[in-house]
Amino acid sequence: MPLRPRSLLFAPGNRAELVAKLPRSAPDAVVIDLEDAIPATPEAKAAARPVARDAARDLMAAHPHLPVFLRVNAPHSPYFEDDLAVLTPELAGVVVPKLESAADVRRVVAALEARGLSLPLLAGLETGAGVWYALDILREDAVGWAYFGAEDYTTDLGGQRTPGGLEVLYARSQVALAARLAGVPVLDIVVTRLNDEAAFREDAAQGRALGYAGKLCIHPAQVALAHEIFGATEAELNRAR
Amino acid sequence: MPLRPRSLLFAPGNRAELVAKLPRSAPDAVVIDLEDAIPATPEAKAAARPVARDAARDLMAAHPHLPVFLRVNAPHSPYFEDDLAVLTPELAGVVVPKLESAADVRRVVAALEARGLSLPLLAGLETGAGVWYALDILREDAVGWAYFGAEDYTTDLGGQRTPGGLEVLYARSQVALAARLAGVPVLDIVVTRLNDEAAFREDAAQGRALGYAGKLCIHPAQVALAHEIFGATEAELNRAR
Amino acid sequence: MPLRPRSLLFAPGNRAELVAKLPRSAPDAVVIDLEDAIPATPEAKAAARPVARDAARDLMAAHPHLPVFLRVNAPHSPYFEDDLAVLTPELAGVVVPKLESAADVRRVVAALEARGLSLPLLAGLETGAGVWYALDILREDAVGWAYFGAEDYTTDLGGQRTPGGLEVLYARSQVALAARLAGVPVLDIVVTRLNDEAAFREDAAQGRALGYAGKLCIHPAQVALAHEIFGATEAELNRAR
Ligand SMILES: [Mg+2]
Ligand SMILES: [Mg+2]
Ligand SMILES: [Mg+2]
Repeated sequence: MPLRPRSLLFAPGNRAELVAKLPRSAPDAVVIDLEDAIPATPEAKAAARPVARDAARDLMAAHPHLPVFLRVNAPHSPYFEDDLAVLTPELAGVVVPKLESAADVRRVVAALEARGLSLPLLAGLETGAGVWYALDILREDAVGWAYFGAEDYTTDLGGQRTPGGLEVLYARSQVALAARLAGVPVLDIVVTRLNDEAAFREDAAQGRALGYAGKLCIHPAQVALAHEIFGATEAELNRAR
Repeated sequence: MPLRPRSLLFAPGNRAELVAKLPRSAPDAVVIDLEDAIPATPEAKAAARPVARDAARDLMAAHPHLPVFLRVNAPHSPYFEDDLAVLTPELAGVVVPKLESAADVRRVVAALEARGLSLPLLAGLETGAGVWYALDILREDAVGWAYFGAEDYTTDLGGQRTPGGLEVLYARSQVALAARLAGVPVLDIVVTRLNDEAAFREDAAQGRALGYAGKLCIHPAQVALAHEIFGATEAELNRAR
Repeated sequence: MPLRPRSLLFAPGNRAELVAKLPRSAPDAVVIDLEDAIPATPEAKAAARPVARDAARDLMAAHPHLPVFLRVNAPHSPYFEDDLAVLTPELAGVVVPKLESAADVRRVVAALEARGLSLPLLAGLETGAGVWYALDILREDAVGWAYFGAEDYTTDLGGQRTPGGLEVLYARSQVALAARLAGVPVLDIVVTRLNDEAAFREDAAQGRALGYAGKLCIHPAQVALAHEIFGATEAELNRAR
């Protein structure tokens, strides 16, 4: 995993063929998703778990150097406990969405420990509480990285997303600042408009200006754009020398 | 009172004929104002109080289902104590401007209790301290709603209002976030340029994007625009079904 | 020193001829700089100190009514202790860059006291910690004024400056608010593009809207522009009456 990952490419946990294709666009890290990508019903979540576990195992076997994360459902959701059974020690870490307090982080760590796991967390800050208490959350030792989620944040506040994005500038700025103080690299918001390179470039440039290390990507074509905007990794620079 | 009031229409407390007309534009709630609408002299404030009390009584008698608020002067002003004599238990609540701390809220509640009143507060956050301590203030049990005031906030900071409004984006965002965490619906800033529908629409859309429930309105024509931007109430949606 | 200084003109501490010329553009106050204007090597810093001390002495002798500040290097830098030897009681105050906590302020005050000095501080907030803990820092009694530094702030967060400046709107707003609560006049960010009057005017107007009292100036031509945007001082208004 690069110190400052520029791209984190997501695939739905119930789509083994999409998970297998994740490495093709050469993202810095990948996420197999049990949360937003899976319908919020007990049946859909239950059906996705074994698919996600097998897909993660196959992906890590085929690509031993690729950092593979798994995103579980939020700690306050009814799906969280069962999601933990999908985690294995070979993962690069676990993405935990909608963290709202330092106590949330500690509960997640305890739940992992109860299963003999000590995976680092990639903390999702994407609710009002997550943004307000960002520094407390990110200072927990278990947190290795973070992301800010604009869609869920805006929904939580009863607001709406707009093209300019000024409605999340405060939250996006505060999360970047809290991440800096906690010493945690932080990934920037998803760009939901696919097939709009200019929009992605502009949004990524804003994120980079704020101090974000890279982008959450939901389409393989976004990875190359993210690398272009967020620049060469140290590894690439070293190789080029 | 709708759960998320979209419009709060103000009339000066010393203008009985304007108070009587408040319901005509069908606002979600109305405010009879003893603060900004009345000149800041002891004589003007004293003259307004009996007019406001009689106007409130007549309005509530004529429109028993209309939520009627009265705005007193700020707790730190010399007018606050005398304003309390105008309040009656029939009001939907009392609008308290320029709250700066949780202690301010508790002092207001105590002053109300001393007069046998237990009205809920619509908390005005419109100073530097009000914005900084927004969460503490809004978490007080007596607070039922809030508003952010951009003109007074900017004056308090020694700043200036500009057309784009970026000078209050931080404060406006923080108040919306604090209101969300406190579970309190929050009303957005006044648009002072009357007769400029486009400006009102744009400003209201910004407020809606940030999570505001509705607008403070200072002209009847702003009410319909606010309802258009902030959308149908649950009551309206239920009736339409 | 005006209550709200509109301009603070900087000159490098190792350039006696530029220091001597500082009063020509009639700034409200001036700063002889040992920090950013001097290369960050022990030799360059050591060579600058005697030049700065003599230049400060000559400037104050020739212009007894001009408020003269000296900017030392950051308290956490290896240059700070030696810089203190350059300070004299005749200075209007000492500019301390990159303050990160109230404890930082107290350490600076103690270091000054150990040398028999009790100069007021002009506190530089220009790192993530400086912005996050702005209110704690500015509430320290020794702090008389403050400034926000956008270039260093953005560098500290791993971000980038852009023409619109939205990447620092949160931090710039928070520092202005904290300064208001602490009762401390605050100076706005440097405009690095010289020879671009329109850019300076626009940036200064943004700072004024946010509540800043004036501008850090790095070129004499910026002083008149700052005074134009930030307006007449009380002294000027009194004289005009
Ligand atoms: Mg989400
Ligand atoms: Mg007001
Ligand atoms: Mg600097």
